[in-house]
Amino acid sequence: MPHIDLPPGHLGIRGPMAFRPETARPLNDLVEVLLTGPSTLSKGERELIATYISSRNCTHFCHSVHGAIAAAHLGGDEALVKQVKTDFTQAAISPKLKALLVIAGRVQQDGKLVTAADVQAARSQGATDLEIHDTVLIAAAFCMYNRYVDGLGTDQPDDEALYRERGRRVARDGYVMVSAEYLGNAHAGHS
Amino acid sequence: MPHIDLPPGHLGIRGPMAFRPETARPLNDLVEVLLTGPSTLSKGERELIATYISSRNCTHFCHSVHGAIAAAHLGGDEALVKQVKTDFTQAAISPKLKALLVIAGRVQQDGKLVTAADVQAARSQGATDLEIHDTVLIAAAFCMYNRYVDGLGTDQPDDEALYRERGRRVARDGYVMVSAEYLGNAHAGHS
Repeated sequence: MPHIDLPPGHLGIRGPMAFRPETARPLNDLVEVLLTGPSTLSKGERELIATYISSRNCTHFCHSVHGAIAAAHLGGDEALVKQVKTDFTQAAISPKLKALLVIAGRVQQDGKLVTAADVQAARSQGATDLEIHDTVLIAAAFCMYNRYVDGLGTDQPDDEALYRERGRRVARDGYVMVSAEYLGNAHAGHS
Repeated sequence: MPHIDLPPGHLGIRGPMAFRPETARPLNDLVEVLLTGPSTLSKGERELIATYISSRNCTHFCHSVHGAIAAAHLGGDEALVKQVKTDFTQAAISPKLKALLVIAGRVQQDGKLVTAADVQAARSQGATDLEIHDTVLIAAAFCMYNRYVDGLGTDQPDDEALYRERGRRVARDGYVMVSAEYLGNAHAGHS
């Protein structure tokens, strides 16, 4: 039961976004640029970073939906997503992504914990400054989205099929198209 | 010394914003709506929430600059800002703002810590659903901004006069005008 009177029928972050379209717009724009914009990190890799942070913050809606989007981008490999949530050091992902997930995990706790050695380790696996920047910001941003979703007591159902279906749709149509369905005209016009 | 090669001459969040204008735009839009848009919370009250969260996260740049903006909105009352950072329960602020700061503090730790009783306490002091929503999102957003600033190892000088001067300018001209100076054409056009 949400802490405030959110519009009914919206799950997770969609409830407060429908309640407050003025803030939904930059929140959606940010995730759109970070997770789907031009990048040398694949969409699947970026969704895995978002999923990992949301899992560490124990925010069920976010790690379920972004995990489902990640799986959809990764050929439906739900086992890989689960392994990243459980222990990414043992996952079948690149050494570069592992080094970036180390940085992301530090940021989730406290940005000041990121060390020059962490950054050097990522660079030695081929990470660029832009990839390191985006990893830090994805991790920081999901510390916001997770707190927003949890702090308002939003509805976060357990139904895995629901997240799987939504993950496939976001992977196919993008965040903006799917958000427009939820938010109606308040959001449909933005590019 | 920043962890990545940020454009020189920019302090705190301005470095990564100049490095990555595509993400600077929604980051600026969000803070603009939350801290300066139409609201029944005064700009000073909203800046105090941002300052309190940044202080709890020990992010020097953010709590210094937002503390200075708050003071500028509050008639230059730097002692009040310091009291909010130190122990807001003893500060000369409204009971409603104290109840909202309790919620903000929970969100800073973990959104799941917000209780129905916390929300009821804020409501009994006159807080509206929109004020509670915005308090949660300001707290969540500064958990992002703080991690972004710290996680990239940005320059966060100790010079109080610098923050005081910047605080006065932002309070007078708004974030967008001041950001445009820093970001140049990449940001100057947005409203």
